[in-house]
Amino acid sequence: MSGNTIGKLFCVTSFGESHGAGIGCVIDGCPSGLALSEADIQPELDRRRPGTSKYVTQRKEADQVEILSGVFDGKTTGTPIALLIRNTDQRSYDYEKIKQVFRPNHADYAYIQKYGIRDHRGGGRSSARETAARVAAGAIAKKWLREKFGTEIRGCVEQIGDIHCAPRDWSAVSQNPFFCADPAQVPALEELIDRLRSEGDSIGAKLYVEATHVPPGLGEPVFDRLDADIAFALMSINAVKGVEIGDGMAVAQMRGTEHRDELTPDGFLSNHSGGITGGISTGQTVYARYAIKPTSSITTPGKSIDEAGQATDMRTTGRHDPCVGLRATPVAEAMLALVLIDHALRHRAQNADVIPGTPRIV
Amino acid sequence: MSGNTIGKLFCVTSFGESHGAGIGCVIDGCPSGLALSEADIQPELDRRRPGTSKYVTQRKEADQVEILSGVFDGKTTGTPIALLIRNTDQRSYDYEKIKQVFRPNHADYAYIQKYGIRDHRGGGRSSARETAARVAAGAIAKKWLREKFGTEIRGCVEQIGDIHCAPRDWSAVSQNPFFCADPAQVPALEELIDRLRSEGDSIGAKLYVEATHVPPGLGEPVFDRLDADIAFALMSINAVKGVEIGDGMAVAQMRGTEHRDELTPDGFLSNHSGGITGGISTGQTVYARYAIKPTSSITTPGKSIDEAGQATDMRTTGRHDPCVGLRATPVAEAMLALVLIDHALRHRAQNADVIPGTPRIV
Amino acid sequence: MSGNTIGKLFCVTSFGESHGAGIGCVIDGCPSGLALSEADIQPELDRRRPGTSKYVTQRKEADQVEILSGVFDGKTTGTPIALLIRNTDQRSYDYEKIKQVFRPNHADYAYIQKYGIRDHRGGGRSSARETAARVAAGAIAKKWLREKFGTEIRGCVEQIGDIHCAPRDWSAVSQNPFFCADPAQVPALEELIDRLRSEGDSIGAKLYVEATHVPPGLGEPVFDRLDADIAFALMSINAVKGVEIGDGMAVAQMRGTEHRDELTPDGFLSNHSGGITGGISTGQTVYARYAIKPTSSITTPGKSIDEAGQATDMRTTGRHDPCVGLRATPVAEAMLALVLIDHALRHRAQNADVIPGTPRIV
Amino acid sequence: MSGNTIGKLFCVTSFGESHGAGIGCVIDGCPSGLALSEADIQPELDRRRPGTSKYVTQRKEADQVEILSGVFDGKTTGTPIALLIRNTDQRSYDYEKIKQVFRPNHADYAYIQKYGIRDHRGGGRSSARETAARVAAGAIAKKWLREKFGTEIRGCVEQIGDIHCAPRDWSAVSQNPFFCADPAQVPALEELIDRLRSEGDSIGAKLYVEATHVPPGLGEPVFDRLDADIAFALMSINAVKGVEIGDGMAVAQMRGTEHRDELTPDGFLSNHSGGITGGISTGQTVYARYAIKPTSSITTPGKSIDEAGQATDMRTTGRHDPCVGLRATPVAEAMLALVLIDHALRHRAQNADVIPGTPRIV
Repeated sequence: MSGNTIGKLFCVTSFGESHGAGIGCVIDGCPSGLALSEADIQPELDRRRPGTSKYVTQRKEADQVEILSGVFDGKTTGTPIALLIRNTDQRSYDYEKIKQVFRPNHADYAYIQKYGIRDHRGGGRSSARETAARVAAGAIAKKWLREKFGTEIRGCVEQIGDIHCAPRDWSAVSQNPFFCADPAQVPALEELIDRLRSEGDSIGAKLYVEATHVPPGLGEPVFDRLDADIAFALMSINAVKGVEIGDGMAVAQMRGTEHRDELTPDGFLSNHSGGITGGISTGQTVYARYAIKPTSSITTPGKSIDEAGQATDMRTTGRHDPCVGLRATPVAEAMLALVLIDHALRHRAQNADVIPGTPRIV
Repeated sequence: MSGNTIGKLFCVTSFGESHGAGIGCVIDGCPSGLALSEADIQPELDRRRPGTSKYVTQRKEADQVEILSGVFDGKTTGTPIALLIRNTDQRSYDYEKIKQVFRPNHADYAYIQKYGIRDHRGGGRSSARETAARVAAGAIAKKWLREKFGTEIRGCVEQIGDIHCAPRDWSAVSQNPFFCADPAQVPALEELIDRLRSEGDSIGAKLYVEATHVPPGLGEPVFDRLDADIAFALMSINAVKGVEIGDGMAVAQMRGTEHRDELTPDGFLSNHSGGITGGISTGQTVYARYAIKPTSSITTPGKSIDEAGQATDMRTTGRHDPCVGLRATPVAEAMLALVLIDHALRHRAQNADVIPGTPRIV
Repeated sequence: MSGNTIGKLFCVTSFGESHGAGIGCVIDGCPSGLALSEADIQPELDRRRPGTSKYVTQRKEADQVEILSGVFDGKTTGTPIALLIRNTDQRSYDYEKIKQVFRPNHADYAYIQKYGIRDHRGGGRSSARETAARVAAGAIAKKWLREKFGTEIRGCVEQIGDIHCAPRDWSAVSQNPFFCADPAQVPALEELIDRLRSEGDSIGAKLYVEATHVPPGLGEPVFDRLDADIAFALMSINAVKGVEIGDGMAVAQMRGTEHRDELTPDGFLSNHSGGITGGISTGQTVYARYAIKPTSSITTPGKSIDEAGQATDMRTTGRHDPCVGLRATPVAEAMLALVLIDHALRHRAQNADVIPGTPRIV
Repeated sequence: MSGNTIGKLFCVTSFGESHGAGIGCVIDGCPSGLALSEADIQPELDRRRPGTSKYVTQRKEADQVEILSGVFDGKTTGTPIALLIRNTDQRSYDYEKIKQVFRPNHADYAYIQKYGIRDHRGGGRSSARETAARVAAGAIAKKWLREKFGTEIRGCVEQIGDIHCAPRDWSAVSQNPFFCADPAQVPALEELIDRLRSEGDSIGAKLYVEATHVPPGLGEPVFDRLDADIAFALMSINAVKGVEIGDGMAVAQMRGTEHRDELTPDGFLSNHSGGITGGISTGQTVYARYAIKPTSSITTPGKSIDEAGQATDMRTTGRHDPCVGLRATPVAEAMLALVLIDHALRHRAQNADVIPGTPRIV
């Protein structure tokens, strides 16, 4: 209950540190009978993997996943699926010099307040490396949702600094290292990241994620709403500072006549609500946006203190992403998948007898 | 597990419908020994109560809370505290005509898909009336946090439509029906709400909420982060579509050198992070913003369908707030209090032996 | 999370004290569409009600249940069902003299160690009166199980002191105040209870409870086994000190050839396992036994101490059952029902796609 | 939520199958600062390990545990501790012939009903091999409890078939392969097990487990009582069919004057209650008994059916314990430790402010 489990029926418990033996997770609650092997998981890990372009951290991790349990004769058995990814390219000596110092905007200071001890090597548990476990679990959730409902989950970057990626060409996303669906902006992004690296600075990002073919009826009203759980899941990604569902923060200046999604026998006329009303999916596309703060680890020195309380100047070296948002898309997709499968299982637990309402429009 | 409980150690289970016998909640996990009576809860309910000004719904509810259990000789005993607020001013006949029709952007359509049945009277369970139970529970959490840590929680409106309430004079908030901390904008708000009502329209809002004197160390990294739980809690409020912690969505265009909060022996030099790094409180003020969509119940007709799937024109009558954001502040404060007390209890469960880290700066 | 909720999908949160405003519970997770009114619950409460014969406590409680929420037009809506039973016959002055004294084998001493405060009136939260809330919730679970699977749950007393109630005539159980299925033993039981009351003493009991027509496949292996959850549920009843599934403690002297239940195409040849193997129901009758300690509140004085640590002689007056086991049957039935409905919902969450195994024998 | 996690604050999630890659668990919620290495865990695993005497299964497993995460510089960090034990001596071909057949009293039939698929090799997930993960987790709990409160947990066998091990000499337990505290009975036990093996039969057992120096106040009244959680934990061990706390099933024939534990300023005069009243520890020794059914895997043929529903004769070969109770003691100790640490953490979450009641007697 230290908060390393997500989900109430499809429960994913994450473990591992950036520079320990490895990272992984246990998935408890995956339905039996799903065809599954490492080959279903590895491609998602490869999308998130560090060191794949010069725009992200140069740490080289193969990120090879091993299924330790829960699969027999190529199918899930309904028992816990344990996944393990060994760390291989730790360079912990890079971190010796920050052992006694708190890096600004990092978890360092908060960890020492909470635990009285911290694994300073590469951020330890607070490293974005932990998200590999989420991506692995999400790959299983994605597969189940796709086979069961035809649900497709995908994401892209919408904004980095002042660069807006506006047209959305989904086929472009996998063609560049930025998860950018607007190919025209790729050169500008390349230039920006190069410049930041040379300046010793970093930048934030706004990203988009969606799920199509989500069945209606998912989400529990009042607290465990589908939108609340998506907000929780996205905000739990390292460095995320804001989450929007549907029109998001812009609703503050919208009128009721403008925001409402009218219904017709042929379907909804718009989707301002992001596919969710009253905390429950309507059957429309579920979509969200989230903003990621600029990487805290930068080479421009900043004021800090050490464990003795003395003032010091802090300059973070090591191998870091100038924009942590760049590799967030596979993670956000995974988190959305984990929320949806959990609610799909919850829904059928309580509502399996319900004859789906008529009319059903989308 | 239909999602009507929030909290892992300070667990609040909400029940009740807008036009049923009443609403209430059971609080399981309140520490023993807290002085408590109805008089500690009623003032918070009065802040949220409908019918108190002409700018909000004219439903007249006394919202008198009764403590059914868990308090003996004026103190909490550590056993469940059940709270009950009877409904008194239901006018269910107002809703007969919408019995067969789905109101656009309401939960109606989603509920029927999920449950195959819905209590159409006043929104049933999806009514904002349910938030009274949260406010009642939050009053207890607030009291405990104040006595234990000196934590103060407060909120205000920041934007309604195009009206921005910029200067923050906390003493003004209780002096107007808008929870507006910028007295100069009150006349404009009055005019806007009057106009919307006459036009049969509604408007969204952006609001701010903060907690001061939050001890460092609250929040569990990875999933149950303090920021993730705040996002969950605020997004679970009816009509909320976006949540921001610290700099929020604006981080997308910020640089690392600009966003990071530098540390000195005398404390942090800024608070862009909203008092949370790595999912854990730093001891700085925790603050968040959230956006609430315009009220869905408006008198301007809109396209909809009925339960037979036939097209119809929908015009919602009944007694509604032109801006549901107006009464959201006490609810958001309560939700923040519920998150903080839960994490305070979780923290001492796991970390009670930790000698708080030195240095401790704020 | 102070442990007042049972169930992971059909969650029952109990509240209330013996001499407070009332007792009740909130049921979160009941499927929608179940026909329900107070009339479905009251008969079960009447079976447990005090004061119905001279062999049990003479406290007169009507135990009238009110459904506060979750039911609309005579059907459950899928939202929380809150139930309230007001206390009416408290005589708290009976308890003034024990205010400062710990009654031997009561929860008094442990409560003060845990909470530093206790509601001494009638046992407060530790009173068996709390079980009325469980019976009320169990009535709903029973109804759903009966309608869905034809499951029938029933119980009886097997032993009180040296009196064994051996032949099992289910029609006799409701014909005597002892829930005794062996009518020949009723006069002996009457004589025993009368004698104990005059002697100022009390007696323990062993009871039996079973569920027929339990579908196979319920129960989660490893921890949340069906048998482990039944043990938990029965041991959570006040005064229970032992729980047996199937052959129970007697397996210690059994051989494998004797204990195993052989399978044939026409079904199992025996049911030593109590309808559960590997933690999962087999489709056979699920049955258990449990032992209840003698009532602690007796008029024969015993050694004790007061809150100042001084020795004192303790003689409990008030209105008490000479054998708390006498009224336990409806409670145990309710607990078994709560476990079964919870696992039925869990099963369909995870295994709804499974085509039930062939062969299916019972 | 398929039930592979135990604990609410000290959460242990178990994974793995008898003949898969390995078994293990993730512990989420272990307080930081506990000195920990594999050397703290291995001795407990060695006590449970198969193949150590001719009286138990001849499977040879080194049961070497690896700590994958959560420990840094020899201390726990408060983050999840993942433990992995690789399987090395699987002989899955032993199981080919039972692939299509249900072994009587095994989980086979129930698994196929539940999941539609089963890992038949060595019992898969239902194998007692899974308990190694529990023992590993329990070793950590034991260490924490010992350091924090001086709590000692130990167990022994009390009865195997008709052989009763009555005098309790704790120093003898580790001197024989039966966990027998009555050295005089060891030869009889040796003879019995030898005879059973030659007869192709097996036998049940009754065992005892206790914890001394348990602080008062642990346990949550009503549902999550300490006794209910112990019953749950012990009944969750493979093959357990009965659990007793304190006097256990014998209370059925006891009088109130006989069963109650009187209090004096110098402490309790007896401990019939097993150290728990009202679901809360009193500070006395907590003790329980549990009965384990005879091993289901025996070489005497029995009636069964195959997956096609045809009658067959079943004779289980492979390497099995003639008495599964023989190796249960380290598992039961571990389960008791897991329950106690969980309640210790829960207690301080809610009751950390309570000034322990005076008087405190034991």
